[in-house]
Amino acid sequence: MSSSSAAAAAKPPMRDALVAAAFRLFLERGYEQTTVDDIVALAGVGRRSFFRYFPSKEDVVFPDHERCLADMTAFLAASGAEHEPVRRVCDAARLVLRMYAENPAFSVHRYRLTKKVPGLRAYELSVVWRYERALAAYLRGRFAGRPDGTLRADVIAAAVVAAHNNALRSWLRSGGEDDASAAVDRALEYVQSAFGLPSVVVPGEPRADDVIVLVSRRGAPLWRVVQELESALGRG
Amino acid sequence: MSSSSAAAAAKPPMRDALVAAAFRLFLERGYEQTTVDDIVALAGVGRRSFFRYFPSKEDVVFPDHERCLADMTAFLAASGAEHEPVRRVCDAARLVLRMYAENPAFSVHRYRLTKKVPGLRAYELSVVWRYERALAAYLRGRFAGRPDGTLRADVIAAAVVAAHNNALRSWLRSGGEDDASAAVDRALEYVQSAFGLPSVVVPGEPRADDVIVLVSRRGAPLWRVVQELESALGRG
Repeated sequence: MSSSSAAAAAKPPMRDALVAAAFRLFLERGYEQTTVDDIVALAGVGRRSFFRYFPSKEDVVFPDHERCLADMTAFLAASGAEHEPVRRVCDAARLVLRMYAENPAFSVHRYRLTKKVPGLRAYELSVVWRYERALAAYLRGRFAGRPDGTLRADVIAAAVVAAHNNALRSWLRSGGEDDASAAVDRALEYVQSAFGLPSVVVPGEPRADDVIVLVSRRGAPLWRVVQELESALGRG
Repeated sequence: MSSSSAAAAAKPPMRDALVAAAFRLFLERGYEQTTVDDIVALAGVGRRSFFRYFPSKEDVVFPDHERCLADMTAFLAASGAEHEPVRRVCDAARLVLRMYAENPAFSVHRYRLTKKVPGLRAYELSVVWRYERALAAYLRGRFAGRPDGTLRADVIAAAVVAAHNNALRSWLRSGGEDDASAAVDRALEYVQSAFGLPSVVVPGEPRADDVIVLVSRRGAPLWRVVQELESALGRG
């Protein structure tokens, strides 16, 4: 299995042939009714060739997740102190979207298959979990020493994955027709607005986790309160 | 399998005997090496009795999740417009904690077993996914008609589950020694601070000269702050 984008770009035709044969059979006969023997027979290769590329039948359904997980891990490992952590994990999540968007027809087809086959849904949950743990591990490192650092890391990683998947699934349900990037950007923006820095970061300026305390009389007119608030938030 | 707390309180001894036998064998021989036949032999019952209570060997490891899922669904279904939605899903998540805390020794033992057996981890992921979907379905209903309602629902549900599980796992790692409720309360408080209403409630009748104190993170979106403010001022 390739472990970098460069290797994936030059991935061998045999691997592609196995994926194509598998999906043709899954479509014709159903996933459960298709064996690895059926797949290799159609692709015209031996069983050993199949298992050289894929540990199991499930893996042929998600042929690029290992590469994408490796890319994500490398991307996060290459981060520096200058990267705002929440934005960085949002950018890492966009690598997954890119993989899906590279081949919309394949992605949509797999989505429909996965919805029908419980074993594939379980496999997909385990893949999603590995992405989430990769994001959380990075955030735990960045939040080390902060109070509740692991809590924040786990919650933000889960929120990023959920936002990404909400947008991804809308796109897959649309048949891969809509603009996937725009939907994912908006979804991730929501997570950043809840947890991250404001869009413009000025060093030395107030930080997103600063706490604003506003004290007001209940009888005060709302417009005045909002005005004060805008001013306190630096958005007046 | 019982579907209510009342039924669970009167759960038959045979079911408990099967769980006890299973765990004794998992501990002695390992999970993979233990068959359903071994379990029923030790418990002194027939195979049919096992499958009356548990669809599979995995289910005997998590004997109370079905009941807990049913309780959570009923709890959410009984919600009214007076319940703030984010707080409500946090309270729903506390039902899961209560199930774990009812039997600390069993929960800790299962946690250690689950960490070692990949098949059980996969099963646990699917259970966690079902809790998350139950919370998200409720929030989707409450947020219906709001812009990005399904996005918000999915993200908040994932954040609640991640926060709950972060605290739950800390407690399980501690051997069930610490105060589980306090840890989960603090974790869920973090999610509410990011997404929900402020936790300060002014008791009694509002008076014009009451002082309102609003605490917000600087990074919070202004519309959210205003919404919370309106609600706190009783003008929502």
